[in-house]
Amino acid sequence: MTRQLIGVDWGTSNVRAWLIADGRPIAQSQSTQGMSRIMASEYPRALARMIEPWLSGAASRNVIACGMLGAAQGWVEARYRTVPCKPVAPGELTAIATELRDCTVHIIPGIRQFKPMADVMRGEETQVAGFCVDNPHFDGVLCLPGTHTKWVHVSAGEIVSFRSFMTGELYDLLCRHSLLRHSVSSNEFCPDEFREAAGDQLSQPELLAARLFAIRAESLIAGLEAARAGSRLAGFLVGAELAASRPYWLGHRIAIIGAPRLAQSYEMALDIVGQKPLLADSERCTVAGLTHAHSLCLNFP
Amino acid sequence: MTRQLIGVDWGTSNVRAWLIADGRPIAQSQSTQGMSRIMASEYPRALARMIEPWLSGAASRNVIACGMLGAAQGWVEARYRTVPCKPVAPGELTAIATELRDCTVHIIPGIRQFKPMADVMRGEETQVAGFCVDNPHFDGVLCLPGTHTKWVHVSAGEIVSFRSFMTGELYDLLCRHSLLRHSVSSNEFCPDEFREAAGDQLSQPELLAARLFAIRAESLIAGLEAARAGSRLAGFLVGAELAASRPYWLGHRIAIIGAPRLAQSYEMALDIVGQKPLLADSERCTVAGLTHAHSLCLNFP
Repeated sequence: MTRQLIGVDWGTSNVRAWLIADGRPIAQSQSTQGMSRIMASEYPRALARMIEPWLSGAASRNVIACGMLGAAQGWVEARYRTVPCKPVAPGELTAIATELRDCTVHIIPGIRQFKPMADVMRGEETQVAGFCVDNPHFDGVLCLPGTHTKWVHVSAGEIVSFRSFMTGELYDLLCRHSLLRHSVSSNEFCPDEFREAAGDQLSQPELLAARLFAIRAESLIAGLEAARAGSRLAGFLVGAELAASRPYWLGHRIAIIGAPRLAQSYEMALDIVGQKPLLADSERCTVAGLTHAHSLCLNFP
Repeated sequence: MTRQLIGVDWGTSNVRAWLIADGRPIAQSQSTQGMSRIMASEYPRALARMIEPWLSGAASRNVIACGMLGAAQGWVEARYRTVPCKPVAPGELTAIATELRDCTVHIIPGIRQFKPMADVMRGEETQVAGFCVDNPHFDGVLCLPGTHTKWVHVSAGEIVSFRSFMTGELYDLLCRHSLLRHSVSSNEFCPDEFREAAGDQLSQPELLAARLFAIRAESLIAGLEAARAGSRLAGFLVGAELAASRPYWLGHRIAIIGAPRLAQSYEMALDIVGQKPLLADSERCTVAGLTHAHSLCLNFP
């Protein structure tokens, strides 16, 4: 019987756990008890709900975990490693003993950068590690779109530098809490509107602050439809991100690691600047990264 | 006995009302029942609370009002006039009969612009009108900082064009609802930090999207203090606004109409680009504008 491992990716909003055998997920569970929604004391029970059924089998009691459970507002604050460095390396895991059938949860350290701009990641380093397992000779830039999108320069299996963008969070705040909430809908995607807005923003990046209010005004006085307005807003924000991440995508090979719909919108925006990124599945990268970390750091199998 | 008038500025968050005699406020009241906080049906009572004591005197029963009570989400949707136009002109008021001692509330139309970018204002046109009463020969640009800052090009007593920025709302959303809420405080202002951030943003406006997350990262890994972080955030956002409003301030005379603290921060940012704006008091401009509108539109005195 193959020995199995349990891996967990604890995000800001959502949590996913996998039972993994021979590098492949054979069962999975998820929850919405992300870091921003629970207190430190609630982690043991939230974890138990997700993984307990798997503990009667052959799974290792050394659970490997990445993400925001290691943040200051998470379960236990875990270390950072500093670039340039391998995305995942032996040692420096933060271990939490639990009462759940003697499981120990091992948190993979986050990555930090002091220069040229302060930056941090927690969770993405594991996806980067998983991508590098599949693509050992990759030299280029990984784009991981999400609430806080990361652009990560990878060379010789190391993270050289990276930069984070609040694009996803800004989109969400503007759609739900700002004046624009009366004008935009994020349920329908208009590719032409998105593409045009991203292009406008790339060619005149200094105008972002003016363009946001104009969405509201155009909906009030010229009947701009909510679906077009939402796609235009997304285009402006992704365009602003590409304008700011130019040193990352210009002249590099690019791969996008992300959920399909989000990855496609970044692919569309990158097409404007002539980039044809590879697309990598984010779940596959996470599972491969957790497996790699488990093997590297916990000497298994 | 001088005949008196009642003027009201109904904003998104706050409401102010004045009893005005000979163009000067002799009494005032305020409330937090702004447009975003009440339903259309609650306006009569909210208004009564603010102005009823004044109605036993010599005040005109024709109350003049500007602002968001005329918005689609306000009391009654009022008209827009289209640029280029005088900020306030005879006719086109929207009248609401009330049961409050036979008062009629007259809403000053908002202003809209179709080109080069869709834009709208409600309330600021009255401040612009008041400024023009005090400065009849002004030719230049008025900056009205606030939740949605307006830059207004005024020439020969007309609004030629204008542009709105969500700077104040973005600052508020980021401080209260985003990841940055853990890192920034808006209670203390660090002028040096603000000035440096605004300058950085002006010289590389395409980097805004990257700079926001870096505030959080620097507070996590390098101990950036909350007051400095908040001032830096404000500097980035005001710098982004100046980068986008360049056609408005470059080569024009500038006057800022705003609350003192906010006006000072814009003054500081404009100093970076060599502009020395006039400062005008916003309450004075509003009262002068309401008085002017009352006289012009309602034939009083």
